[in-house]
Amino acid sequence: MIIKGFTYAAVAAGIRKKDRLDLGLIFSEKPAVAAGVFTTNRVKAAPVLLDMERLELGGAQALLVNSGVANACTGKIGMQVARTCTDLAAAALNIDGNLVQIASTGVIGEQLPLEKVAAAMDELVAGLSSSGYDEVARAIMTTDTVPKTAARTCSIAGSKVKLFGMAKGAGMIMPDMATMLCFVMTDANINADILQQHLAGAVKLSFNRITVDGDTSTNDTVLVLANCTSGNPEITAFDTEESNVFSAALTDLLKDLALQIVADGEGATKLVTIKVINAASEGDAVQAARTIANSALVKTAFFGEDANWGRIIAALGRSGATFEQHSVDIFFDDVLLVQDGLALGAAAEAQATEVLKHKAFTVTVDLKAGQTAGEIYTSDLSIEYIKINADYRS
Amino acid sequence: MIIKGFTYAAVAAGIRKKDRLDLGLIFSEKPAVAAGVFTTNRVKAAPVLLDMERLELGGAQALLVNSGVANACTGKIGMQVARTCTDLAAAALNIDGNLVQIASTGVIGEQLPLEKVAAAMDELVAGLSSSGYDEVARAIMTTDTVPKTAARTCSIAGSKVKLFGMAKGAGMIMPDMATMLCFVMTDANINADILQQHLAGAVKLSFNRITVDGDTSTNDTVLVLANCTSGNPEITAFDTEESNVFSAALTDLLKDLALQIVADGEGATKLVTIKVINAASEGDAVQAARTIANSALVKTAFFGEDANWGRIIAALGRSGATFEQHSVDIFFDDVLLVQDGLALGAAAEAQATEVLKHKAFTVTVDLKAGQTAGEIYTSDLSIEYIKINADYRS
Repeated sequence: MIIKGFTYAAVAAGIRKKDRLDLGLIFSEKPAVAAGVFTTNRVKAAPVLLDMERLELGGAQALLVNSGVANACTGKIGMQVARTCTDLAAAALNIDGNLVQIASTGVIGEQLPLEKVAAAMDELVAGLSSSGYDEVARAIMTTDTVPKTAARTCSIAGSKVKLFGMAKGAGMIMPDMATMLCFVMTDANINADILQQHLAGAVKLSFNRITVDGDTSTNDTVLVLANCTSGNPEITAFDTEESNVFSAALTDLLKDLALQIVADGEGATKLVTIKVINAASEGDAVQAARTIANSALVKTAFFGEDANWGRIIAALGRSGATFEQHSVDIFFDDVLLVQDGLALGAAAEAQATEVLKHKAFTVTVDLKAGQTAGEIYTSDLSIEYIKINADYRS
Repeated sequence: MIIKGFTYAAVAAGIRKKDRLDLGLIFSEKPAVAAGVFTTNRVKAAPVLLDMERLELGGAQALLVNSGVANACTGKIGMQVARTCTDLAAAALNIDGNLVQIASTGVIGEQLPLEKVAAAMDELVAGLSSSGYDEVARAIMTTDTVPKTAARTCSIAGSKVKLFGMAKGAGMIMPDMATMLCFVMTDANINADILQQHLAGAVKLSFNRITVDGDTSTNDTVLVLANCTSGNPEITAFDTEESNVFSAALTDLLKDLALQIVADGEGATKLVTIKVINAASEGDAVQAARTIANSALVKTAFFGEDANWGRIIAALGRSGATFEQHSVDIFFDDVLLVQDGLALGAAAEAQATEVLKHKAFTVTVDLKAGQTAGEIYTSDLSIEYIKINADYRS
């Protein structure tokens, strides 16, 4: 989706591999209101640390992003490289260096080759165009097999507001406050505090509800840039009708991107929604769903198309959620397979096995312990996942 | 190891598969002092619930164990089947039913075929012999590829005390208070409270320090039977020289069995010790080691023989342990690969890659955040693990 005032470009800078797009730039013609959510991993990559520092100062006008090298665990040199990269971009764009955000994804522990970024900068800036977003979405891919973008529009006080987002991520995916990389551009007129609050809420219900392999990256970053040109009256309060419309659109957009990440999870053949209902608390529901969604045995059974509910209930039992084992019901889509903790027999299992043959399905676990629910989105664990990750660096 | 007063037998009862040992019996000629540690999974199998109830009543004289069916999530019928099985054993042995413990391992959610257990009971009891322990160790195997036994002797107040143990477990292994199944026979003269305290301490340092796939079983059981015939003066206090000698021997025995379980983990090709040193607390050390040991990405890199320390430090960062990312050192055996959070370069990586080619090695993570240390023992995550678990029930 083209949003007036935003331009995009990507080039093959040869950062880790030759002849593939690996350096992208997103530019806002005017300084944008910015909000960001970053990894909660105690080990944070240099670009994450720099972005967090700069978001404290205010808005953003450009985002430089590379794949191939994560610039994580690279020490003072890594921080200096990140700073210099943004300085180079700022100089080429003729803007203040503090208005440039940076994101990196790839191998941990290697230095980002500054000279390659420097050599590519002029071509990158020269290539900026309002329709270049698909190239940037491709430039941020690592083990992703498809680029991930999504768009939404909403109407706020009579003005049409657009949101466009892109994301990457296929492994090291159990974001906790953010996912690998996601950038959202919008023309909404909104102040920075409210944007940050809505982003935090939307991330909680989207990227914080997915898992591929239970590993949280050092580089998780979600950034939103709002250039405020849509014409809507500035959103300055959290809980108004206008604010809620924007929040709903943003949440919906991020959820779309989050599900694209799970569906493209490393080696994934299934997209599975784990839904826990009638839990004693939201924390219980989400933790129970997350424990099931991360269980290697459950995920391998999904890959094997085996309706192995015993593994689901075993994972549930170690999740810490409150329930009685003699009360649990388990559904595969609409098929009731386990009632009050007991299997319903061969006919139900045959139907559940049919559900497992689908590319996407929902496992619903009814705890009968309260009134709240929560969902986690996960993939299966396949032979291909092992192959990808046994070989990833080589 | 033969311990006077204990006899063993196993038969092929056809519980799930034909012509394989799947029903075992351990008998103590006199009622033994007993201690047990069981799964902390909220979902507990019928035999676990029955054993916990009976241990409250006092000692034990026999243990009936089957593989093939876990008798978990089987409701009231499952509890009744467990009770009836122990009643059948008690009648055949001519002892009190409350002195019979029971353990089961196998598929969750299926009823244990009572008639097959009943039909095999006479043959089982007739086969009891003091050297039959290897057959019982084989009868409890499921996806295990080798039986697991260990023996220790120690001298307590001039008396030679023997300990012999057997264990099974290869998948659904991240015991939390116990592992899948482990039975220890000893002739130590010791009272029940002290035996229980020493068992809890030994389990904490052995079975609670291993993981294959991060999943905790519904059937985890560790039982110790002490027939008190060794001649040592009864151990009645926790912290005496005699008590400590026994505790050290028991801990050493359980650690031996725990390491055998990890080495035989489903699909495992490596036995890896994750050692976290100089942590701020023991909790930090163990949690950091456990998070690394359970990371699918770390375990897959071990399988790929890739010294991918970035995945180790990323897992460390989400573990919750306190440390500064610029202080961490990482060793593969004696090879220092990462110093103060930074890679030492190609030569160190080449040496670390050599270490990874071994069947067993240690990854040491120095947090420089305190004075305590902790270890977790883990396996790699291989293509074979996926194959085993995608097909396990079929």
